Amino acid sequence: MTNPSKAIIAIHGGVGTISRSHSGSAAQEATYHKALNGILLSAQQMLNEGGSALDAVSLAVDLLEDCPLFNAGYGAVFTHEATHELDAAIMDGATLRAGAVACVSRIRRPLRAARAVMERSEHVLLVAAGAEAFAQACGLELVDPAFFSTEARRAQLQYAILAERTMMDHDGAALVFRSSDMLPAPLDESRKLGTVGAVALDSRGNLAAATSTGGMTNKRCGRVGDTPLVGAGTYADNRTAAVSCTGTGEMFIRGVVAYDICARMAYGSQTLDAAAQHVVMTSLPALGGRGGLIAVDAQSRLSCPFNTEGMYRGHARVGEDVYTAIYAGESIPGSN
Amino acid sequence: MTNPSKAIIAIHGGVGTISRSHSGSAAQEATYHKALNGILLSAQQMLNEGGSALDAVSLAVDLLEDCPLFNAGYGAVFTHEATHELDAAIMDGATLRAGAVACVSRIRRPLRAARAVMERSEHVLLVAAGAEAFAQACGLELVDPAFFSTEARRAQLQYAILAERTMMDHDGAALVFRSSDMLPAPLDESRKLGTVGAVALDSRGNLAAATSTGGMTNKRCGRVGDTPLVGAGTYADNRTAAVSCTGTGEMFIRGVVAYDICARMAYGSQTLDAAAQHVVMTSLPALGGRGGLIAVDAQSRLSCPFNTEGMYRGHARVGEDVYTAIYAGESIPGSN
Repeated sequence: MTNPSKAIIAIHGGVGTISRSHSGSAAQEATYHKALNGILLSAQQMLNEGGSALDAVSLAVDLLEDCPLFNAGYGAVFTHEATHELDAAIMDGATLRAGAVACVSRIRRPLRAARAVMERSEHVLLVAAGAEAFAQACGLELVDPAFFSTEARRAQLQYAILAERTMMDHDGAALVFRSSDMLPAPLDESRKLGTVGAVALDSRGNLAAATSTGGMTNKRCGRVGDTPLVGAGTYADNRTAAVSCTGTGEMFIRGVVAYDICARMAYGSQTLDAAAQHVVMTSLPALGGRGGLIAVDAQSRLSCPFNTEGMYRGHARVGEDVYTAIYAGESIPGSN
Repeated sequence: MTNPSKAIIAIHGGVGTISRSHSGSAAQEATYHKALNGILLSAQQMLNEGGSALDAVSLAVDLLEDCPLFNAGYGAVFTHEATHELDAAIMDGATLRAGAVACVSRIRRPLRAARAVMERSEHVLLVAAGAEAFAQACGLELVDPAFFSTEARRAQLQYAILAERTMMDHDGAALVFRSSDMLPAPLDESRKLGTVGAVALDSRGNLAAATSTGGMTNKRCGRVGDTPLVGAGTYADNRTAAVSCTGTGEMFIRGVVAYDICARMAYGSQTLDAAAQHVVMTSLPALGGRGGLIAVDAQSRLSCPFNTEGMYRGHARVGEDVYTAIYAGESIPGSN
């Protein structure tokens, strides 16, 4: 039995603090709203035409990876060594099958590689060169690592390295770069915790979640955050919820955040919103964690809590308007 | 307030099916019992002298890695490309801090590298070359990858590749190798799911867990199983339990097994043994998962369920005898 009116797609594009320099902020905000809106419209149409939750989150994350505004795929941040290391994961709530790749630098679309791991291997997580060889064997597009580089992200790395030195030297020298030099954005790019993700419920009642990231600017090579770790940054189970996280990845790993929400619902009879709010507003801060998540359950209830000043986010139910938001306090109809 | 009488260490050395060829099995069994016994005695002594749970699981896994009988560190299995890729994780139940390395081939003691990630970096998981560079910077010993190789494991790889070909060819050709040619062992090495791990409770009431593995024989390069994934193969939280898993890693990832036990205790008020038994005997088989785990809670209760024919295992409470076991049905005093 299908129920198209319940189908929903929700996406996020990372959390962060509000930029100090707000010149031109209205135009900046409009750019982000427009990007989120376009992606949601595409995924909403797919769901409306009977597409699966798995295909809807795949499409949404594909488009988020391609958009240089967000830290995933093209436009990914740089590591300390000025390279890129991308992570992605996808999970099917109907079967609990999952696939992920981590620490890859040549796969053009990391989320598609994660899906190939799920559908075309017996494994869940492949990393580094082994993941790239698998993607190539699957016929996925490989690119030169420089493909992912943008000037805005390079400036962001230089800023981060200078900020680190300034802090280390304690010399109080003025920073050469201001964050506003890097990428005109409503959320401060120098302190934004970038990830993209999507969760969806389709008309057949199936849930899916997908997450993709370039990690943290200036990160140590080989560092893997919560994004590609099933249970930490990504989880989906038809019996409870689909969850995609963004924030200080290490704390999300230690708290097993995505799965914790499902476990609170399954064993503690908590509602989706009660579970998500508690984890983001109480459990995560207790670990020193900052960030947020998007989550949807099988009844099409939506929860998008975050404990930072902003999170790029939005959702679209089939047959309803698309909603997008950036800052805390912006109420979104249909969201708890 | 310390309570030395409650302190306990438990270890495992992997699960598997019972070897078909049982010639010499009594001597084989004695070899494994002796190895497990010696490791438990060392860790028990450390706990008796007031050592921490974190130090006790570190010591036990160090010794398990060094023992060629078990698939971790020296004596690790080979990948399909005849290389080694090692994974390890450790977690401190008092602070929820954790550290892990994955897909490393030159770090002599992967568990020590995992602990260095926990204590000397801001990260939780480092993989591949980045993890090796970090270990080197920390002064940990690096070795040529051939260091981990043993002839028994090389024969095991050849057997696995032949078995794979035989299955693919459907030609019914007799296998050249029998598992008994490889490593005389009570559990069938050709189908053993090797991992080593330890959980401990110390006299101050702190829990810790650690796990280390060479992964699956003949695995695809870059494959990461549950061992180094916090929440999947390894978890510790003083409020609930310390858990270390072994088995078909992908299913443990999809079920977030180690954390699931803690969540059932925290949100569902289940006892450690009820939670562990349900996860291993019901949840895991529903996903097609085979394996087991060792778990201890803050009241010194122990649970060691597995759904295979055997699991190398044992435990030692401070002031009590050491117990070791291999097969299902062997009752261990003091264990549920």
